Parts: sequence; C-alpha cells; structure tokens
Amino acid sequence: MNLSKPYLTTRSLQPENQETPIQFIKNNIISERLFFRRNHFSYPNLTYSSYWLPVNGHVRNPQLFSLQNIMSLPSKALTVVLECAGNKRSFFEPKVFGEQWEKGAISQGVWKGVPLKTLLQLAHIKEGALEVVVEGYDVGKRTDTDKVYSYARSLPIEKALHEDTLVAYEYNGGPIPFKHGFPLRLIVPQWYGMASVKWVKQITIVNRAFSGPFQTVDYVYYPKKDSDEGATPVTTMRVNSSIKKPLDREILTTGVHEINGIAWTGKGLIVKVEISTDSGQTWTEVKLRNKDQYSWIDWSYDWEVAEKGEYTILSKATDSHGRVQRKEPYWNRKGYGYNGIDRIKVKVE
Amino acid sequence: MNLSKPYLTTRSLQPENQETPIQFIKNNIISERLFFRRNHFSYPNLTYSSYWLPVNGHVRNPQLFSLQNIMSLPSKALTVVLECAGNKRSFFEPKVFGEQWEKGAISQGVWKGVPLKTLLQLAHIKEGALEVVVEGYDVGKRTDTDKVYSYARSLPIEKALHEDTLVAYEYNGGPIPFKHGFPLRLIVPQWYGMASVKWVKQITIVNRAFSGPFQTVDYVYYPKKDSDEGATPVTTMRVNSSIKKPLDREILTTGVHEINGIAWTGKGLIVKVEISTDSGQTWTEVKLRNKDQYSWIDWSYDWEVAEKGEYTILSKATDSHGRVQRKEPYWNRKGYGYNGIDRIKVKVE
Repeated sequence: MNLSKPYLTTRSLQPENQETPIQFIKNNIISERLFFRRNHFSYPNLTYSSYWLPVNGHVRNPQLFSLQNIMSLPSKALTVVLECAGNKRSFFEPKVFGEQWEKGAISQGVWKGVPLKTLLQLAHIKEGALEVVVEGYDVGKRTDTDKVYSYARSLPIEKALHEDTLVAYEYNGGPIPFKHGFPLRLIVPQWYGMASVKWVKQITIVNRAFSGPFQTVDYVYYPKKDSDEGATPVTTMRVNSSIKKPLDREILTTGVHEINGIAWTGKGLIVKVEISTDSGQTWTEVKLRNKDQYSWIDWSYDWEVAEKGEYTILSKATDSHGRVQRKEPYWNRKGYGYNGIDRIKVKVE
Repeated sequence: MNLSKPYLTTRSLQPENQETPIQFIKNNIISERLFFRRNHFSYPNLTYSSYWLPVNGHVRNPQLFSLQNIMSLPSKALTVVLECAGNKRSFFEPKVFGEQWEKGAISQGVWKGVPLKTLLQLAHIKEGALEVVVEGYDVGKRTDTDKVYSYARSLPIEKALHEDTLVAYEYNGGPIPFKHGFPLRLIVPQWYGMASVKWVKQITIVNRAFSGPFQTVDYVYYPKKDSDEGATPVTTMRVNSSIKKPLDREILTTGVHEINGIAWTGKGLIVKVEISTDSGQTWTEVKLRNKDQYSWIDWSYDWEVAEKGEYTILSKATDSHGRVQRKEPYWNRKGYGYNGIDRIKVKVE
C-alpha cells in the first residue's frame, strides 16, 4: 500500500508516446510496463490467425514465412539498448518542435529472434541488391501531406546482413508485447530506434535507394533552420550518457552522495565516463559496470561534499572509436541525436 | 489492448512526488490513479484499530473523536481544486531548487467531511484562540536540520472556523485513498495544498502563532535570492490558468484546432479567460464552463489557422477580485505560487 513506483511519462496519446522514467530505473532490463512507447500512428489491427511474413523483391526465391517457420530457425538473444532518435530533444537550444522527450526515450532488454540474414539467404538475394525495406503494419496520415503511409524504413544491405540484425519474436523471454511490435519486430543494434520497425508486415529487397518519408523527410539531420542544406540521414546512435542520480535541482545535505547514471554508444564500446562536480573545471573518471556489446553501461561515483552551495554536475562518455560527448550538441531542425554533455544542478544546504 | 492511457509523471520516489498528466485529463473529477501525490516524508504507519482524533489545546472541553463520531456529524461534500504551492515551479527563471513540477501538481475531486468548525465548537474554544494547528501522522528528517518533525500546519482561527474547511473522510464517494490522507484529511478550499494536512493525527487550538518549519521555513515567499527580507507566508492560491491543448511544441496542420485548458483562483471566482495566438498582441475572451465555487473552470476556443508558421499561444485568467495573471511571475527563492501567463508554442505546417 505504501509502495511508491515510477510510471511512464506521458508525452502524447494520439499516437501514444510515453517516456521511460529513466532516473528511477534500478534494473538494466526494462519491463514492458516501463519500456518507452513511441508511435507514428495509432496501433495497427493485426489478424494473427493469418499472419505470414513475405520476403520478396530483388530475390530469386520469394518467401512466405509462418511464425512457426521463423521460430524453428537458429536464433540468438541479445541485450540491446533502443534509443529514440528524438531522445533529449527538449534540451536543444534553440528549442525545436516535435515530441518533447527528456532523458527517457531509451530502454533496453533482451530481444530474441532469427538473424535477418538467415531469411535473406533463404530468399536468395540477387546481385545488385542495395537495401532491404522493412514495412510495419502501422499506417496513417502525416502532418505534412494528406497521403496515407505505412511506417517503412530501409537498411543498407551490409547492415541488413549483419549477423546481429534480428527479426525478433521474444522480449525478455516472453512474446514481444503488442505495443512493442508483436509478433515480429526488426531489431537493429547500434542504430537509433526508428530502424527497429515494429509489427513487421513485409521485407522487400530493392536494388535502388528507398525514399519513404520516414527516411527522406523525417530522421534526417537538417543543420539549418530554414533550408535543407547539409541534410544527412540519422543512423547509428551517438556516444551519450545520462545522469540518473541526483535529480536535477535536487536539494542535498552535506556528506557523501552517490552520483550515478548510464552511458551508451552506437559504435564500439563505452571506454570512459568522466564526471565533473565543478561545472567542467575538473573531471574524474568513474567506475563502469555491465559493459556489454549492445547495452548501456552503468556508472557511479561517490561524491563527498562538505561545503554548502550550488553545484553543476556533468557527465561525459567516450567510446572505443574515440567519439566523445561535446558541450554543445549538434543542433538540427528536427531535433535528433542530442548528445551534449549531460548536466544537472543541485543545491547543498 | 490498443488503449493508450496517461500515467502520473514521476518527480521523486523518496518521498513520493508524482504529477497529474493534466494535459491528458478529460474529466474534471480526478480518479485516485491520476491524482498528484505530494509528500514531505515517507508514508506513515497508522494503526486504524486504535484511531482516535484528539482536539485539544486552548479549549474548555478537549475531545477524542472516533471515526464513527465524526462520520455521524452533519457533513458536506465539496468539489475542491487542490494545487501544490510548487505547481509550475520548473517554469521560474532563474530556475529554483526543489521538485521540478510542471503543470500537473494540481487535481480536483469531491471531498466529503465534517466542517472543522463543528469539531471546534464541540471542544469549546476559549477566548484568545489565535490559530488551529493540524498535525499529520507523517514524520521525518528535513534537509536543513537533523531534528525529526511531523508535518504540521496552522490555520488562522477565522479560516479554521470557515464553514467549508473540512475534516474529510471521503473522496469521490469512497474512503480517502491512503496516499491522500486516509482516514482523515483536512481540506482547506482556496489555499494551496500544503494547508490540507493528510493523515490527521491531532488538532490543537493555540493562543499564539505556531512556528513549525512547514510555515516558517517552507511555504514562505522569499523574494530575494540571498536574504529572507520581505518574506510572506504562502496561503491562498493565486489566479491561474493552464493550456492543456495543443501541447507545447506540437506540430499541427492548417485548419481548425481546439485550444483548451483550465483556470482557477483562491479568491472568488474566475470571471474571464483570454487567449492570444499572436504572442500577446491581441487577446480574445473564451468560453467558460463548469464554473463552481472551489473548482477549476474549463475553457475552450476554436482556433482557425490558415497560415503556416510558428505561433505562441497564451492564456490569461482574471478572477472576481480583479486579480489577473501577469506576464512575469512573482519570482521567489523557493519557487511557490507561479502564476505567470501560460504559454505554449506550436508549429503549423
């Protein structure tokens, strides 16, 4: 009765977009209840009794897989962090439009499925295959046009053939929860979440660049406010970290306080996390835990504070490709890929 | 299965502070599930089998009421808006410390109970009674001292004797939910929520000013950052309004959109709500609905927008005492009573 538990933070309901209360998550495997929900459209209506997955297009042997077929193929299970490309959008200055995600458009857990590569091999891709288009069952209107689109994204053929790009059918040991893509969801480790198409309807191999609006209009970095100059596609996750504890604007007493958080990257591994408790004048390397290929790492530091006052605490991660969080995030018009050094402020009294 | 519902927004768990997702509330009576939770300490342990309410102090006939006694006295039910004094604290500039409430540290519903006045009359207040101290069962340490305090607040005798100040035992027709004060909660209409003490343990009439930290340290407006000069107590709610729809930073199409929200005050009634869709250059009076003595009112406006672009939408309420929201809120060090004109920004594309 006296138990206090965190909830998803509601950003919108039509479509449903809700954020993981990341500061209050103690476990590194997020349950369905607290896994962030991100939708472009309302939830699809699927008829499971007639569910088949076509793999077609630029192939020699088009396939129609039943769920049983797919589940009988060799599988693998991976702990993968999924981060929405719009995570932390609300922190951009100048502010941008769209869902005002704070630090919680990110979750992770164990996805099990068959490598997409296996399905593509069974269909015998033809010479000249360039991309693999994955279409979801979710459809609807966009604000920028009256046309109806399904949510569809392509992957470059190399990423589609990567052995860890999965067509997943399990999450944390159970069927994938409906809101997260049941019965099948593409899982693309290291890429922002928009690539991990939910409710997979069809997989099509193409020999030219796919140009759906979810990769030619949305999920594009537009560095200019008023023109599309310099546009580049959103793909792998940037190196990033988030302070979970203390909370921003928390009031503390003098003494020892644990500062902790998470760090992750879409290239290689996190090799270093530094924190500063003096607004960036000095930095200390902190302890890393649970380092895993596709998951976030935990980090923590015991901060001894004797003097009352206001403190700005920063966290900065570095990955094995030498990428490091910068003070200034890469501003872009649609607000993707925010990875500025994380910052909170506390008062010690 | 496809239903999307809003949740409380978690601000902290120790103690539990969670915010009502006010933008997504359609009903004007908030259910327990979505009523904001605001605590100073962890939840108290109460033994209900031995629950008695003492009314003592500067009285001729100290009383010890059982719940049955209280429930057998003449009762009244009132729809009351309860707003945390820290509601909207996160909007202050410069920013202040403490729970970073956005627009949802506010809820309303129907509280039923016996007027506090009835209990005071049964105890026969003596001449010279100045204040009534209401103590809750919640106790704990504060960050500014090592002493243990219970949560206790006093009311001036006139407010305590107001016929609508209730010792409530029902919320929305059922027992008061535990997290909101079961079995008895003081309900002080028109005052910020800190006055509505939960889990009432004792009521004491005093003939001098009570000086507990929850009214001499906290719940005080300190207009200066570095001194206590000009400090005044936090009491009645300021005139206020919140835009619920559209959402801040929402992307809309051209056409007609409903702009709606709520407005409330701690003095008299809301008599006017104006909105501006051009950053405050022009104002339009909007339709008010559900005007009730102690509740918020709903307002709405059909906005026809033909031209693409960015729009700043403002809402401004006026009450029957001539109080009106100002552009600049009254900044104060602890961040109470924010009532600046509400403001969102949308993009029409």
